[in-house]
Amino acid sequence: MEPDRVLVRYGEIGLKSPGIRRHFENLLLKHIKVFLARKEIPYSKIIRERGRFFIPTSQPQKVAETASRVFGIVSSSPVWTVSANLEKIVALAGSLTPQLLCDGQKFAVRARRLKIHKFSSPEVATQVGAKIIEAANTTNQLVHVDLDNPDVEIHVEVRQKSAFIFTQIIKGPGGLPYGSQGVVLGLHSGGLDSPVAEWLMMKRGAKVIPLYFDAAAPVEKQFVDRAIKSAEILAEWMPEQNIELRIIPFYEILRRLQMPKYRKLTCILCKRMMYRIGAMVAAQEKARALVTGETLGQVASQTLTNLAILDSVVTVPIFRPLIGMDKTETMTLARRIGTYQVTSQDVGECFAVPSQPSIATTLADVHEAESQLPIEEMVLIAINNIKRVAVA
Amino acid sequence: MEPDRVLVRYGEIGLKSPGIRRHFENLLLKHIKVFLARKEIPYSKIIRERGRFFIPTSQPQKVAETASRVFGIVSSSPVWTVSANLEKIVALAGSLTPQLLCDGQKFAVRARRLKIHKFSSPEVATQVGAKIIEAANTTNQLVHVDLDNPDVEIHVEVRQKSAFIFTQIIKGPGGLPYGSQGVVLGLHSGGLDSPVAEWLMMKRGAKVIPLYFDAAAPVEKQFVDRAIKSAEILAEWMPEQNIELRIIPFYEILRRLQMPKYRKLTCILCKRMMYRIGAMVAAQEKARALVTGETLGQVASQTLTNLAILDSVVTVPIFRPLIGMDKTETMTLARRIGTYQVTSQDVGECFAVPSQPSIATTLADVHEAESQLPIEEMVLIAINNIKRVAVA
Repeated sequence: MEPDRVLVRYGEIGLKSPGIRRHFENLLLKHIKVFLARKEIPYSKIIRERGRFFIPTSQPQKVAETASRVFGIVSSSPVWTVSANLEKIVALAGSLTPQLLCDGQKFAVRARRLKIHKFSSPEVATQVGAKIIEAANTTNQLVHVDLDNPDVEIHVEVRQKSAFIFTQIIKGPGGLPYGSQGVVLGLHSGGLDSPVAEWLMMKRGAKVIPLYFDAAAPVEKQFVDRAIKSAEILAEWMPEQNIELRIIPFYEILRRLQMPKYRKLTCILCKRMMYRIGAMVAAQEKARALVTGETLGQVASQTLTNLAILDSVVTVPIFRPLIGMDKTETMTLARRIGTYQVTSQDVGECFAVPSQPSIATTLADVHEAESQLPIEEMVLIAINNIKRVAVA
Repeated sequence: MEPDRVLVRYGEIGLKSPGIRRHFENLLLKHIKVFLARKEIPYSKIIRERGRFFIPTSQPQKVAETASRVFGIVSSSPVWTVSANLEKIVALAGSLTPQLLCDGQKFAVRARRLKIHKFSSPEVATQVGAKIIEAANTTNQLVHVDLDNPDVEIHVEVRQKSAFIFTQIIKGPGGLPYGSQGVVLGLHSGGLDSPVAEWLMMKRGAKVIPLYFDAAAPVEKQFVDRAIKSAEILAEWMPEQNIELRIIPFYEILRRLQMPKYRKLTCILCKRMMYRIGAMVAAQEKARALVTGETLGQVASQTLTNLAILDSVVTVPIFRPLIGMDKTETMTLARRIGTYQVTSQDVGECFAVPSQPSIATTLADVHEAESQLPIEEMVLIAINNIKRVAVA
């Protein structure tokens, strides 16, 4: 007997004011539906209850996994449903025993119930546990209770009219509904960090438009390929249609920024150019902030001095969700998001990186270097040559 | 028999260039010594090896716990030392058995060795495991191997001349040595979020100067008390002497910002004032960025629109390490840091919060409101009245 429905939980959203909560719940419902439709998973309807949704379905595992990809969702579980009657709950647990436990396994029953019921949570746990041992015995299986270190946790949740039995809790990303907080522009490098930074802003309810600067020589397609692939993986988390990666042709610009006299400054000049162009694209797209994958002290361009020199070139806010994270923490997140495999590929280094990039230059030096070039014209040409590649 | 020394590991720092690595290692050594001295824990010396330190000591548990509070340290372990000889390793494991394992426990031996040795890691694990079972038997204890789900993991690490046995790995914060990346100013509210944000920047190598705005009515000491207590807990992570919380008297300023005609804007006007004053204090202290605990979409003042209006008031970079985090993630970090208990205390709400704070105002409206007040004069008065309270 398969679970008959999926229980979907959302957390922080439940704390908002009633009007906002209703609005956010509607967004969550819409996003779950978009994802289920995208994967063509059958379900009959979505039932709304305070703090949770129920989705009756013949494919509970797929529905639960899909719902757990929606920003705002805390977790989901395929559940077996029975009426909120202790005898019936115990009977269901007994009949489920062969599929919940194998011979020799240790289990724990975790019970919760609304206080309206006459029986207590410990009573539910005790009776269900006893029934499971008995049911296992009838098929000559030996299972035993271990509350501290069980192989399987069997959850029983008793609500007003119905009770639910489940063993699996699939973690969702949490956060706020995608797009509920407005639009930001992601400086999407294709490397490990920026997709993680973009995903974290998506998690907090931002719609992210990814922008890639194609600085590779025209023959080196592996850079842009990696950026497209990682944008495609991010797009799987976006409950939208027709998602496009914006691409700025950047090779000629970067060659001009490689000025022999200011060779140590190339990286910071390059980044300032990306910020400038990013701010213009953000204005076009009504995005209210730039998102970058920068981390303090990770590489030469990410010193306090250099980050300040970068910030000063634009007025739009720069969000750096990784600023306080270690590489290992970013890698863990990248694995969770699904971008790790693609973005940890070594595709070679940028041709323009100097042998000794400056870690502590001054704004005056940077301005002097920039005064040698027609910066505004270069920005405008870049914006006018922007390309779009569909990633979903 | 107690472990005779502590093994201390650092990670990311090992990847830096030799010059920077040496500099960072020296900082780590210095910071470990400061913390050990602060707690008056005896040790004879710190031995430096590639990627790790060894600290011979009669108080291994205290030394390991203390070293694991140093930014840059990945983990530490109290270890038993023996020469890198398989027979001697096995003998030591045998004699340690009574203190490593209790009757009935499952264990796993995890062995690593440098390739210079003739024996392999699986040989080490097998022989050590067999010896432990035998040693337990001689005192009528029954222990058995369970590689997948052990109660105790017994690690054996064989280096060039010495080998180490340990069971405990105490996690450190990771990151970069405190202060190695320069100075930032923390807008320290005393609530849950800002100390976590400050700690994350400390973890990435920033020295943080905390600044508190005392906006409570003169009789309401609980606000400033909470801010001081949380700054004291942060200061325990700082390998410095004479750490002071800066306090700006802010009550009169906030009362003036409560303009009836612009009542909905009070929170954003208040925050802009804090940013302005923060930027001035940062300049005085040579701090290169402001750190705030803001998270996208958490409260009314943290919408994209409002964050942009905040950013535009200063030129110094704003670092928001929590921008992509959920409240539950921040709470988990606060527990780890030690600030949770103090900062989750409800000390009452700010008197100036309007019933309907604006979530989407315009910069023009904000400028109009600010034009009613002598902003620069108010900032100067605030700066001149700054106080300092010792927190370490």
